[in-house]
Amino acid sequence: MQQQCGKEMPAISRNPGFSRRFPPAQVCLSRRFSGAASRAATRALARSEPVSTVEVEALLDLIKWDSSGLAVAIAQDVDTGAILMQGFVNRDAVSATIASKRATYFSRSRRSLWTKGETSSNFIDVVDVYLDCDRDSIIYLGKPDGPTCHTGADTCYFTRAADILQNKPLIGENGLATSTLYDLERVIQQRKSEPDGKKPSWTKRLLQDQKLLCSKIREEAGELCKTVEENEGRKRTVSEMADVLYHSMVLLAAQDVKMAEVMEVLRARFSQSGIEEKSSRGRSSS
Amino acid sequence: MQQQCGKEMPAISRNPGFSRRFPPAQVCLSRRFSGAASRAATRALARSEPVSTVEVEALLDLIKWDSSGLAVAIAQDVDTGAILMQGFVNRDAVSATIASKRATYFSRSRRSLWTKGETSSNFIDVVDVYLDCDRDSIIYLGKPDGPTCHTGADTCYFTRAADILQNKPLIGENGLATSTLYDLERVIQQRKSEPDGKKPSWTKRLLQDQKLLCSKIREEAGELCKTVEENEGRKRTVSEMADVLYHSMVLLAAQDVKMAEVMEVLRARFSQSGIEEKSSRGRSSS
Repeated sequence: MQQQCGKEMPAISRNPGFSRRFPPAQVCLSRRFSGAASRAATRALARSEPVSTVEVEALLDLIKWDSSGLAVAIAQDVDTGAILMQGFVNRDAVSATIASKRATYFSRSRRSLWTKGETSSNFIDVVDVYLDCDRDSIIYLGKPDGPTCHTGADTCYFTRAADILQNKPLIGENGLATSTLYDLERVIQQRKSEPDGKKPSWTKRLLQDQKLLCSKIREEAGELCKTVEENEGRKRTVSEMADVLYHSMVLLAAQDVKMAEVMEVLRARFSQSGIEEKSSRGRSSS
Repeated sequence: MQQQCGKEMPAISRNPGFSRRFPPAQVCLSRRFSGAASRAATRALARSEPVSTVEVEALLDLIKWDSSGLAVAIAQDVDTGAILMQGFVNRDAVSATIASKRATYFSRSRRSLWTKGETSSNFIDVVDVYLDCDRDSIIYLGKPDGPTCHTGADTCYFTRAADILQNKPLIGENGLATSTLYDLERVIQQRKSEPDGKKPSWTKRLLQDQKLLCSKIREEAGELCKTVEENEGRKRTVSEMADVLYHSMVLLAAQDVKMAEVMEVLRARFSQSGIEEKSSRGRSSS
């Protein structure tokens, strides 16, 4: 059912960490549109609109706009750090993003504002906006509602220059630009999908043998602690933490859990001082 | 001592994962300059130069350059996912980056190439280059040699729009745009630097009591395993993994270990199938 906008409705705030990170805005936009609503009406409603306040204008005045009145805006996943997409913004686009908390850009070809997700419904819920030192480049730190790229890929960056240079076939999402933790997650996932063979990889063996996996996780946690207890030095700590992470991530893969989900929980907890609260509960009950 | 360039010298390859991710280039550039070398000579030598090959030209032909012959290039930390900086590139800048494996840009104001680090020596060692779906936006995935920003901050993105909107004082590096894991690391670090008080936070208590910290890490690892052993469901797995991560990261903070160091070790291991190898060793000895 289509929601109606009204001043009395609360601002959208799906992200638990949002209120801490980003001031509220008195703008209401319904999240999803379906049924009788026409595509055009959907787009019109889904597009975020700029809102002018003294504070927002002061912020916009700080940005160094180029001769066309534009700056670069990069949308980044707040939980994984993945760069989702990049576009250009004008004053209205930044203002609309701040007001609606949805990543909004200025299309240079269509000469108009567009909110990421206005046609796909895969919005990027912005929890923080950052300017660079020159104030001509912006990060929209946010949480994507779904795949960001129009191709269906999680991010728009899936074409590796190395593959082109080596005349390799372009491999779609497997080639996503990701940082180490999520590269590791992908490697483990690849091992998981390998067919059962005579000589399974160590990761595959862990995935097939729950007892072995759990004994390794307990062992590695103990070894991490030993680096402190027996004063083994920080280099050992680095190495043992890597072991704890790897083995725990194999368990996540076994349970079909994504590291991004863990990050989302951590963000919700520590943005509400929940870590302190939760751990206190654990402490008193233990 | 200043190195001399020669065709017989191997390409620079400090990053263990590099050879896997990015094809070698026959370009030699010395890494550091000091002593008698003049600043100008240093800059000239430190600046990467484009190299034209059939493969590189084919890649450059794929990029959708704007009317000024430019595209956007975002430098991202391969280990932490942090966006380090953003600049513009022309054909020569991308070609020079591929050849030298150092992030190189085109300065729109000076109308010339510049390699990040040519004056500061804080280069960004590029391990992978990605194009977006429209092929007009590029990621330089790399490892920074030191702080990227000319201000000395780790990245150029340390100005929070929320602080400006709320008229808060701008807090420098504390305001760095970081994703959840590194936000958590910062929160723990903040707790660590809190003065000892009558009611220390839970994090502070863990930092002060090694026995308590280690017992919590072992306990949480056990609880993570229990989610599989006792079939508690994936939601419990997410929650317990968050606990394992948080408590392990408190131990890292106690040892002055940065998560980025752990990531670097993981990258070195799995890019050489080292996880398999290392774990096999662990297996045979256990």
